[in-house]
Amino acid sequence: MGRATDRRGVLRIDLGATGDRGARVRRQDTLAVEEPLEIRVGPAGAGRRRPLAVTMRTPGDDLDLAIGFLLTEGLIRSAEDVHTAQLCAGADTPNTYNVVDVVLSPGVPEPETDPSRNFYTTSSCGVCGKASIESVRTRSRFAVREDPLEVTAELLAGLPDRLRAAQRAFDRTGGLHAAGLFGADGELLVLREDVGRHNAVDKVVGWAARADRLPLAGHVLLVSGRASFELTQKAWMAGVPLLAAVSAPSTLAAELAEEAGMTLVGFLRDPTMNVYTGAQRVTA
Amino acid sequence: MGRATDRRGVLRIDLGATGDRGARVRRQDTLAVEEPLEIRVGPAGAGRRRPLAVTMRTPGDDLDLAIGFLLTEGLIRSAEDVHTAQLCAGADTPNTYNVVDVVLSPGVPEPETDPSRNFYTTSSCGVCGKASIESVRTRSRFAVREDPLEVTAELLAGLPDRLRAAQRAFDRTGGLHAAGLFGADGELLVLREDVGRHNAVDKVVGWAARADRLPLAGHVLLVSGRASFELTQKAWMAGVPLLAAVSAPSTLAAELAEEAGMTLVGFLRDPTMNVYTGAQRVTA
Repeated sequence: MGRATDRRGVLRIDLGATGDRGARVRRQDTLAVEEPLEIRVGPAGAGRRRPLAVTMRTPGDDLDLAIGFLLTEGLIRSAEDVHTAQLCAGADTPNTYNVVDVVLSPGVPEPETDPSRNFYTTSSCGVCGKASIESVRTRSRFAVREDPLEVTAELLAGLPDRLRAAQRAFDRTGGLHAAGLFGADGELLVLREDVGRHNAVDKVVGWAARADRLPLAGHVLLVSGRASFELTQKAWMAGVPLLAAVSAPSTLAAELAEEAGMTLVGFLRDPTMNVYTGAQRVTA
Repeated sequence: MGRATDRRGVLRIDLGATGDRGARVRRQDTLAVEEPLEIRVGPAGAGRRRPLAVTMRTPGDDLDLAIGFLLTEGLIRSAEDVHTAQLCAGADTPNTYNVVDVVLSPGVPEPETDPSRNFYTTSSCGVCGKASIESVRTRSRFAVREDPLEVTAELLAGLPDRLRAAQRAFDRTGGLHAAGLFGADGELLVLREDVGRHNAVDKVVGWAARADRLPLAGHVLLVSGRASFELTQKAWMAGVPLLAAVSAPSTLAAELAEEAGMTLVGFLRDPTMNVYTGAQRVTA
């Protein structure tokens, strides 16, 4: 369990190599591991745990992922809402480490499973599985707008290199998204990698929740790819005042960040960056 | 409706510009549009359409997206299973173009909405919203393994440039994933772009289904990013024998491609590529 990468035979073709038709070589390649994780949730006591969601994730930090998921989806308010969370030896699944069993604390309501509100579905987006547009939005209990965080553009510009330096240690696949949580002084507090960028963020948030660090006031969350509506909403749910992405944001990410009073930085590529919202937090 | 990009004011910071603390300039930036699309499905006749899923997508080709989604999720078998699909002026949603209303043909069973099988959830993965690991897999009715397609490595190597050339026409955002369908001769048949890579693929598959081109035997599907389990499964559901990705595949994508008898090419970056499965289709 918990392997982030695996090796596999591959045919490497190099048309630029010397020879009539280039080179064709069998070799081993390192791939990012992707496996399903089923999150089951049940009430305090011996009640039945019901399957809540399946996410395709890279194994590792699965308890953080489950708790971060429940939190950023608005299903729990803090890690204290969870009585126990454990990797479960599910008798009905071949891989016994692909199920997390969450028991809620007494008094914490079970997530709705009413099919008229919720549902089935697909997708590489943070709202999938929700059956109606009204159900897409979750509400954060943290007042991000008032967060007095200020960082210099120079400090921000240096963060992607710090993320990559830490990431390089174990990502040899090119297939893992990274999310890194930084203090206002630019110190990297935690880095998580996953084939799903939303999982990487949920793992960071779950780590913070279990360490009793929520809300993440005064912190910077950096993601290695694009900033979607989903990631922005997850950041808001965790109380993050500044979300930075190495790549592009979407329109809805910028609109949500503005509504939240969050700073959204995109295309963070030293020495340049775009500040889409909350520019007062990025000082000269 | 249907705008793929939008403009927004942004603070551009360039620390490398001349001056003590670099340049800070207000300017307009082009962003990829991201909006929710609710897919509603109901039986033939005047029966009630029920919300089935919400996906965060870039507007445009929404009927293709809805039909491609239903097809690659295994909820319909062909475009003939759909009696009508239309953008609906839903009285209960502010944006009347963010709902697609699908009426199934007589005799086509409605998708299950049993909450014990399906559910709520999140995510940037193609299986999210499914509540149990058993429900993740869909079964393709197309025998991809027998597909006699053969293409030269040189032809494959040229496809990303063709995709980008077509894409360049309207992606000025850096925020859109692309999926392109090619014939065995390397001709680009259709290109779709979306903030969600799964949506781009669903739009291609929906286009093919409505043009009565399924299964996509003898075709190559190229995606601009990584190859996940989800994308591989969608390609299989459409009968695609060769899936190529500009970036990395995951372990599960390679395993599924092998099981399907599909060719999976990753890191397709002229003049090199990795062939993970089905190498017999990539000739010298």
